[in-house]
Amino acid sequence: MRNLPSVSLEEARQIITGGERKAQEIGQPVNIAVVDAGGNLVAHARMDGAWIGSVDISINKAFTARAFDISTGELAGNAQPGAQFFGIHVSNKGRVMVFAGGIPLQHEGQVVGAVGVSGGTGEQDQAIAEAAVAAFRPSR
Amino acid sequence: MRNLPSVSLEEARQIITGGERKAQEIGQPVNIAVVDAGGNLVAHARMDGAWIGSVDISINKAFTARAFDISTGELAGNAQPGAQFFGIHVSNKGRVMVFAGGIPLQHEGQVVGAVGVSGGTGEQDQAIAEAAVAAFRPSR
Amino acid sequence: MRNLPSVSLEEARQIITGGERKAQEIGQPVNIAVVDAGGNLVAHARMDGAWIGSVDISINKAFTARAFDISTGELAGNAQPGAQFFGIHVSNKGRVMVFAGGIPLQHEGQVVGAVGVSGGTGEQDQAIAEAAVAAFRPSR
Amino acid sequence: MRNLPSVSLEEARQIITGGERKAQEIGQPVNIAVVDAGGNLVAHARMDGAWIGSVDISINKAFTARAFDISTGELAGNAQPGAQFFGIHVSNKGRVMVFAGGIPLQHEGQVVGAVGVSGGTGEQDQAIAEAAVAAFRPSR
Repeated sequence: MRNLPSVSLEEARQIITGGERKAQEIGQPVNIAVVDAGGNLVAHARMDGAWIGSVDISINKAFTARAFDISTGELAGNAQPGAQFFGIHVSNKGRVMVFAGGIPLQHEGQVVGAVGVSGGTGEQDQAIAEAAVAAFRPSR
Repeated sequence: MRNLPSVSLEEARQIITGGERKAQEIGQPVNIAVVDAGGNLVAHARMDGAWIGSVDISINKAFTARAFDISTGELAGNAQPGAQFFGIHVSNKGRVMVFAGGIPLQHEGQVVGAVGVSGGTGEQDQAIAEAAVAAFRPSR
Repeated sequence: MRNLPSVSLEEARQIITGGERKAQEIGQPVNIAVVDAGGNLVAHARMDGAWIGSVDISINKAFTARAFDISTGELAGNAQPGAQFFGIHVSNKGRVMVFAGGIPLQHEGQVVGAVGVSGGTGEQDQAIAEAAVAAFRPSR
Repeated sequence: MRNLPSVSLEEARQIITGGERKAQEIGQPVNIAVVDAGGNLVAHARMDGAWIGSVDISINKAFTARAFDISTGELAGNAQPGAQFFGIHVSNKGRVMVFAGGIPLQHEGQVVGAVGVSGGTGEQDQAIAEAAVAAFRPSR
């Protein structure tokens, strides 16, 4: 047997709240999604006025960050033309997002889920995702 | 010009909270999703232990209830073999759910979004969705 | 935090071996797949001569059994015309299989994965899946 | 009539075992998949801790290597912007992988299947795939 420690709904909400606070601070409404250790959605929120096309992107940025245990911003560099993973973005039925805004959630050295943010510039999404991760307070 | 009155994120969260309370009362963890007047996801929550296959179903029950301005339980009757809308469940790229748990959200005679619940029996999902709708307090 | 105990690759192989033995006994080559607690594939084997269309079905029967913590044979009854979950088979991007051959793997009261078998009749697939589950020896 | 010489399940397992040994040696858990002469999955294994997003990629690297009878690393060069096959990665419903880790399996001058590895860097995937191919011992 293996053990997959995973974020709970309560933790996912704290993470989303942390992201929202940052988003309000910089005045950019976004979508924020959290997936668990299995890559499956735990919670999602679209702030009023955020892009509807970003619902899917926020969920899939979170999926991607967990699927490859890497931030999507870092993956981006490897997914460009000429780089070692160019073309990865068409795998997994179009769920792999290769631009900034998805970050794995870690606890005691293991990836226990991931957060995905979409709706602003790459820099804004990344900053909001970082604030979301910073709000992660693993219980016990 | 048209106006699309639509649930806000804050209202969506009240709705989800109302559903969760009922789900806890009957001891059945579920997924709860709220879409806006455009049929697009506003917020989603998967209670700890709820089925992962129900993430998609909760979101799409909400979509369906808004897409046709009808509860999915009511649509079910019309979507059976021999009934007038049989086959509708393969339209919209598999997003049309034809069993109970999706209910439109109404305000002043207009559909302003919908809620979708998945994770229990059809009866449980329906009861939880009704509790969610009952928690809807349109601001102003 | 939540904990998702999950089958290991070694356990998945024992499970597949158990299924294969039964399949050889009844002379029916099949596909056998095992998914983990997150619904993601751990291992798959297609016996020589088994249907190629059953690759997808075996993987998705396993997914379905974990996604809803239910055997696909049991789900079948609820997914027929007039039953409470009719139409569920179009959800999850066509990954929900509503006929026999998928069974959840349980350990200490929790679903830790699932097995899916496809290639024979419903009865054969079910018998092979049961043999596969019976071969599950959780480590520790 | 034509004859499609093709890897058997037993051979696929030897191939996967060869890949796993190399993966353990370099300390990089990966997904390893083998497809037959028809491009259809014969066997797959995800080593404990390997990326879940690589399930799909390993299977599709193997598919790609057989679909075009070329290693995916070699195809990569032809699939870059400006090269003769740029855009090929969106064909075949997103199954064409254009980065290293997929290698055709040959026997007596014919391609009889392919192996796909995903989970490490491009170099690691390639080295593991080569070790997998080296373990291929065609029966008779």
